[in-house]
Amino acid sequence: MAHLLHLDSSLLGDRSVTRKLSARAADAWRAAHPGGTVTYRDLGSDPLPHVTEATALARMLPPEQHTPAQAASWALSEELVNEVKQADTILLGLPLYNYGAPSSVKSWVDHLIAIGLSIDAQTQAGLLAGKEFIVLAARGGGYDEGTPREGWDHAEAWLPHGVAATGLEPRFITAQLTLAEAQPFMAALIPLAKESMAAAERQIDDLWSLVPVAA
Amino acid sequence: MAHLLHLDSSLLGDRSVTRKLSARAADAWRAAHPGGTVTYRDLGSDPLPHVTEATALARMLPPEQHTPAQAASWALSEELVNEVKQADTILLGLPLYNYGAPSSVKSWVDHLIAIGLSIDAQTQAGLLAGKEFIVLAARGGGYDEGTPREGWDHAEAWLPHGVAATGLEPRFITAQLTLAEAQPFMAALIPLAKESMAAAERQIDDLWSLVPVAA
Repeated sequence: MAHLLHLDSSLLGDRSVTRKLSARAADAWRAAHPGGTVTYRDLGSDPLPHVTEATALARMLPPEQHTPAQAASWALSEELVNEVKQADTILLGLPLYNYGAPSSVKSWVDHLIAIGLSIDAQTQAGLLAGKEFIVLAARGGGYDEGTPREGWDHAEAWLPHGVAATGLEPRFITAQLTLAEAQPFMAALIPLAKESMAAAERQIDDLWSLVPVAA
Repeated sequence: MAHLLHLDSSLLGDRSVTRKLSARAADAWRAAHPGGTVTYRDLGSDPLPHVTEATALARMLPPEQHTPAQAASWALSEELVNEVKQADTILLGLPLYNYGAPSSVKSWVDHLIAIGLSIDAQTQAGLLAGKEFIVLAARGGGYDEGTPREGWDHAEAWLPHGVAATGLEPRFITAQLTLAEAQPFMAALIPLAKESMAAAERQIDDLWSLVPVAA
């Protein structure tokens, strides 16, 4: 049975671009995987705690030596790693806040990276390799090559490195210039913004369109 | 009266490199500013909450329309912005976790960025400009040009952009390869690690050494 893990992290509820895109992707996945099951986690409205000293020490000590706080943090890591292990596909809605990933997404990654859970303790191999990891990203501006703020999207730049040790390899589908309609000084960019959104939607609709349909 | 804001964020307590460096810098600052006062905030052991929908909405609505949750988040932003405004110098200990800033540092920045508090609502000018902002950074590996993981330090790359709207301009003093002594595969890098640490300490000791001493 195919299984999907669907994660959101935006704080903007119904106004969120990444929530709209991840919902579209989840719908497309469901249509292509009849009978498939879904786990949903909302890092935006129900964030994981920041990692603590107990999280760090739990990674340096064998589980049988954990204090209660270390054991609790390790159990949370196990839960989050198992959620990913049980999924064939992971969808993550990733907005850009102050030019970085939401702190809740950083927390998710920090809890997820654990030798003995997501990384093999002997070989250092990533134990989450081979998953389909689709990131539905949005950014209010445009930070491509040649723009005045080239390289200011530090969420997309960081995430592949942040999860690399686990074997996860994010594929990004990104809508940019999403603030163009709301910001008068960006009015000239509205056509580009619409083009970017349409391209993102097309990429989502094409994700599982090659799955054979019963005749 | 000179005032210092000293922030730490490492989870490693006494073993933290950034805590050692920021403490050395705070000592140097105190020595050069007799009678100066210090505010200390520990983002590592006492992290700020992740920003929430209330944080986001508090930034879109006039204060008199805030719900209690929005008012509480806005009050926290005011507190954090005032801490920075009251300081002449800010020291921040910044470790690198999973190739990014600690989520607690991202949260601090997210709470700090607020039009009407740290950014002028009319002119968009950064209201925290002109502060001395020294970041004591550490990274376990080496991510300089020409290394296999060139560009994997996404904490130093992000922070100047993350706080740019406020006018804060971080100056980095960085110790790298700090895991060289602990990791057998990095043993050959121990001399470079020692050199990097010595250079960081020298830069700290020189920070306020030109302040005239009474004869």
